[in-house]
This record gives sequence, structure tokens and C-alpha cells, in this order.
Amino acid sequence: ADIVVLPGDGIGPEVTAAAVEVLQAVGLRYGHQFRFAEHRIGGAAIDATGEALPAATLEAARRADAVLLGAVGGPKWSDPKAPVRPEQGLLAIRKALGLYANLRPVKPHPAALGASPIKPHLLSGVDLIVVRELTGGIYFGQKQRGADRASDVCEYSVAEIERTIRHACTLARGRRGKVTSVDKANVLETSRLWREVATRVAAEEFPDVRLEHQLVDSMAMHLLAKPREYDVIVTENMFGDILTDEASMLAGSLGLLPSASLGEAGADGAAAPGRQIGLYEPIHGSAPDIAGRGVANPYATILSAALLLRHSLGLEDEARCVEKAVDGALEAGVFTADLAPAGRGVSTRAATAAVLEQLQ
Amino acid sequence: ADIVVLPGDGIGPEVTAAAVEVLQAVGLRYGHQFRFAEHRIGGAAIDATGEALPAATLEAARRADAVLLGAVGGPKWSDPKAPVRPEQGLLAIRKALGLYANLRPVKPHPAALGASPIKPHLLSGVDLIVVRELTGGIYFGQKQRGADRASDVCEYSVAEIERTIRHACTLARGRRGKVTSVDKANVLETSRLWREVATRVAAEEFPDVRLEHQLVDSMAMHLLAKPREYDVIVTENMFGDILTDEASMLAGSLGLLPSASLGEAGADGAAAPGRQIGLYEPIHGSAPDIAGRGVANPYATILSAALLLRHSLGLEDEARCVEKAVDGALEAGVFTADLAPAGRGVSTRAATAAVLEQLQ
Ligand SMILES: CC(C)[C@H](C(=O)O)[C@@H](O)C(=O)O
Ligand SMILES: CC(C)[C@H](C(=O)O)[C@@H](O)C(=O)O
Repeated sequence: ADIVVLPGDGIGPEVTAAAVEVLQAVGLRYGHQFRFAEHRIGGAAIDATGEALPAATLEAARRADAVLLGAVGGPKWSDPKAPVRPEQGLLAIRKALGLYANLRPVKPHPAALGASPIKPHLLSGVDLIVVRELTGGIYFGQKQRGADRASDVCEYSVAEIERTIRHACTLARGRRGKVTSVDKANVLETSRLWREVATRVAAEEFPDVRLEHQLVDSMAMHLLAKPREYDVIVTENMFGDILTDEASMLAGSLGLLPSASLGEAGADGAAAPGRQIGLYEPIHGSAPDIAGRGVANPYATILSAALLLRHSLGLEDEARCVEKAVDGALEAGVFTADLAPAGRGVSTRAATAAVLEQLQ
Repeated sequence: ADIVVLPGDGIGPEVTAAAVEVLQAVGLRYGHQFRFAEHRIGGAAIDATGEALPAATLEAARRADAVLLGAVGGPKWSDPKAPVRPEQGLLAIRKALGLYANLRPVKPHPAALGASPIKPHLLSGVDLIVVRELTGGIYFGQKQRGADRASDVCEYSVAEIERTIRHACTLARGRRGKVTSVDKANVLETSRLWREVATRVAAEEFPDVRLEHQLVDSMAMHLLAKPREYDVIVTENMFGDILTDEASMLAGSLGLLPSASLGEAGADGAAAPGRQIGLYEPIHGSAPDIAGRGVANPYATILSAALLLRHSLGLEDEARCVEKAVDGALEAGVFTADLAPAGRGVSTRAATAAVLEQLQ
């Protein structure tokens, strides 16, 4: 299998290197040959080529079996007047590959509950997954800047909503059968369309799935007050961005949360028809404040590699094996600084070594 | 002073009645004459007149010294195909009165920490206030519905941002001097304008205030992980809607959070020049599931009445007196169901009586 690695900026290179090591070890153990090719994206690509997503990177990603990404961005490229920003590379690759469904599972690990701001008794048994629409909405609508004003358009088509709801409902079938669709239908027209389409698709195609609707503001509360009640949460791009960062606090640290961005065979002209394309990245950012110091938490990227094994390569046992290894490292108390009591975290290298050891 | 009361729907009539009783008691104690006039808004207004904000209601509000509102909405009026929705009444009155600054203070009460999903040690010392822009953004931009798509426009003018930032910075001067401006400047054009204007206004007009910027997704995390670090948080309409409901969990219950929506003298043709108009409402909704049962938590509306005394009537001592009375009732353990351990809450009447007693 060909895996394109896009380290990106900040701690990106450190955490992708850790995940690649783990993938190599899994390949060795199960007898697979993974070929890795590194390409530039984000700030690193801007520095080298002037573009946040060089054509060579996109071309390689299109041809690969899967893409593993670190993170993009940093103060170096965040001058508001800059002509290109690192984030544009990330948004562009999501769009170009047609990665409309961003899966963000949240399952707090018992050993990491100390790091969560939430009371532990609310967290036991929490096992939810957010399906965030990733290639539409206000992220990709028309942007305008006038002399004294600015605007962004949020737009959704029926087809964009349908495929996202289908993805969520299909996922729910393999889980507890419940889907919570989040919108702001009491105010937004796009949300009213979202709710209508969700209701219709669920009723017609997924009579076995229980669908409920929540307003985004209430959801921001209920996610904290009764997280156990949720199974699959599906929502549009911007709401998903906010709610998943909030949900990360259930798990104790952003440093534990992986994500998978999945496309449709041939959707938006992405991959060749019949091929499922996937991009895997931790939900944390490039953390420029700790970059290059060897202390970043690699678990989220390693868990993203597990999702890659599962969703792009169809290697379920191998995926489970990686997830168990991370569980084991956490149980053994191998915590990086984001998880440990003040000033007592281990290095990226030590955390990776702990996972590799569990893989044996 | 003339106070217009808009009970609205669901538990609205119950909680505004409680707050009016408290205002009457304060008036008696301090020798003020408050005159109350009730008008319809929301579902109640739709049933009676076909409109969510009847002209008579708006006219009365414009002439009043302050407006006290309960809540609007409920299943009875939430058919997506309905020509008018209760929420339109709320949005219309905010807009018509030019109430661009929505203040939502969050200061967890020690006695209510048990009801919060957040670990208590993170909450001691939390004292923040969110200034939510209330009459612009995607709430009020153009909405379109086509055969197979829908759209909403988010728009902000420099002037709209300036006045909101000024409001936040002025508030910060009377507090700890720190303002956190929240946006999504790495993706949205309106957010880039927001950040530019915030930076300029703070630098030119408020050199004594410390301004920092946060992305909305990070804010959704930090609000839980380190709530003590925030003083004044200022943001646009939709982000403010989501973040304040999330922040309510710090206080234990939505039932404890008041809000003040303030306008500018003559802004948007609101009140007569020189008059500050204000609308006060709990941040919770109409809670149709418990409406009419006499069990709603009246504290948020009573605390909203305290904000009314402070901001619209300039009665600081009287406002403090009401706030202390609610504190006292909470300290005495007078909890409605949302705050009490399962099934052991007191009635709206008992909670109101406890506040009235503390007022003596
Ligand atoms: C970097 C940014 C553009 C991105 C987003 O908002 O989608 C990030 O926050 C994420 O959630 O993946
Ligand atoms: C009822 C609704 C329109 C309203 C809003 O979104 O502004 C409410 O959620 C609020 O926060 O006051």
C-alpha cells in the first residue's frame, strides 16, 4: 500500500514520524509492505513553493491508497495581510479529494480521566463519534471584502446533506443505532434544509436508526452534561469544528483524538471511481509553542494511523492492534505533558516507544 | 419607571411573574415606583395576532424604560412549514431596538457547583462575562432557498464590530482589564475583519486594556480547561450563542444565567437619542416540557431583573441587593429541580419566596 505522508508545520513532522514508525512495525508484524512518500503542505509548502498545496502534493495524494497528515499553520505565516495561508492548503486538499465526511471518535480512556475538566462519573461509558461535513458550508462559500464590510456565504445542497446523513446513519448501524443531527433550524435556512433532508433520508432509508435533532447551542451544553447519551452526532462543517474541539475535553486532551476524512468514490472528481480515498490527521493543531522540542503527544496521530488501516486499507485487526497498544501505553501511565500533572510528561520518543513495545 | 414585561411562551409567564414580584419588593424597600405593562411576543403573540412581534408590543417596548422578557417558542409553533415562528419575534425585537450588545455574565455560585459537569477546583474564582454581538452576522443576513439548496449570508460592517469591541473594552476597564476576542480568522473573511477592527480599536482607544484573540474552536476547549483565565469575552452573534450555552455549564445550570441586551442611544433608530434601551432575559429557553407545572427555576430571570435595575435604571444598590438575595437563597440550599439531586427540587414559588425573604 502507498501512503502519502504530509508532515506540515510545527509538531506535524514529529507526530507523523511517530505514526510512521508504528505503521512500519505493524506492517512487519502482519506481513504488509507499506510504502511511504513525504510531501509538503501548509507553511512548509509556502516556504518552498509559494503555494499552500503544491500540485505535486495533490497529485501524489490522489494516487495514494491513503494520506496521513500532521498539522498546518503557525505564527510565521499568520500575518493577516499574507497572500496565502497554511490553512488554505488543508482546506484545498479536503475539497480536492472530495473528503466530505470527517469522523471524529471520542471515547475517553479511563487512564486519562484525570486530564479532563469533566467530572469522572459523567465520562464512564462515553463512546461517541462526530461526523462533521467537511467540504461545504461557510468554509467554502463565497467570501467578500468591501471598504467597510465583509461577508461569508454558508451554502448547502440537498446532495451534500444527503451523503453526510447517509454516512452517519450507516455508521450508527454498526454501533448503537442512534444519530443526533445538530443544526440551528430556528434561525438558519441552511439548517432548516439540513433538518428536512436528515428527517427524510433517515425515514426512507434507515428506518432502523433512531434520529433526533438538537440545536447547536443546546448541544454545546448537553455534550458536557450527558455525554453518555450520544452515539453518532452529525453536523455541518462549522458546528462540527466547534463541537469536536469541545468534545475533545471529554477525552482529557486534544492530543488523544484522531480523525478520518473520507471521500466518495469519484466524488467531486476526487479519486478514480470505485476507490475510497481517505485522509487521516490528529484533530489538534501545529502547536508552534512546543514544536521541535520532542515533547508533543503522538497518540492522536498514531490513532489516526489506526483509522487509516481500518478505513483505507481494510485492515481491521491491524487497526485494533494499534488502538490496543495506545490503550496499553496509557494504562502503563506513559503520559506526555498535556496529560501529566504539571511538568512531568515524557518525550514523544518515549511515548512512541511505549506503543511500539505494546505492539510486540 | 415603566417596565414592559413580555412573558412569552412555556415557562416564560412563570419566571417573569417571579421576577416582577421581586422588583416590586425592591421598589417598596427603596421607595421606587415601578409600573409594569404586559405585552405579547412569540408563540403567544402568533396565537393572538398572527404575528410574532405585534406592532403594539414593539411600540410599548420603545417607550418603556426597560423590557423584561421570559422566553419564546415551543413544539406548538415549530412546524418547519409554518409561515411565522416564535423566534422571529425575539430576533425582530432585538433588531428593532438596536440591542447590539448581549451581556452574559458567568460566575459560578459555590452552592451550585454540584450541578456543574466541570470539576469544582477549576471553577473557584471563575468570573467572566461574554459580550455577544446580537443584531448582525448570519442571524440577520440574507436567507435563500432554492429547489435543491439553501444559503445564509454572514455579514459584518466595520461600524458593527467597532461598537461591540468598544462595549467589551469599556466593560473590561471596570473589571480585570482583559478582553478575549473570539473569531475564526483562519477561515472566514468576516472573522479577519473582526480581528483587524478589534486590534485597531483596542490599540487606539483602549491602550490600558489587554486584548487577545482566540479561534472559536480553541475557545470551546479553553473555556472548560481554564475558565479562570477569562475576564471579558467578545464575539459575533452565532459564536456567542454557542459559547454562552457552553459557558452556562460552568455555572451548573442554564437556570442561573441572566442576560442584558443593550442598545445605543438612537442606534438603528431604536430609542430616542440620549436614551439607553435595554432588554433583559434569562438565557434559557421556554422549556415546554415543564411549562405550567410551577417547577421552573426563576433565578435567571430574577438575576436578569437585577441587571435591569443596574443597566437601565442606574440603581446599583438595588441590583446588588437582588443579587445578594439570590446568593442567599442558593446558600440556604433552595434548589429547583435543575440544581437539585434527582427529583428533589422546590417549586418556582418556594424559590421566589426564598429570594423575597432574603430581600428583607
Ligand atoms: C486549521 C483549520 C482550518 C481546521 C478547521 O477549522 O477545519 C482545524 O481547526 C480543524 O478542525 O481541522
Ligand atoms: C431562540 C434563539 C433564536 C436564541 C438565539 O439563538 O439567539 C436563543 O438561543 C438565545 O441564545 O437567546
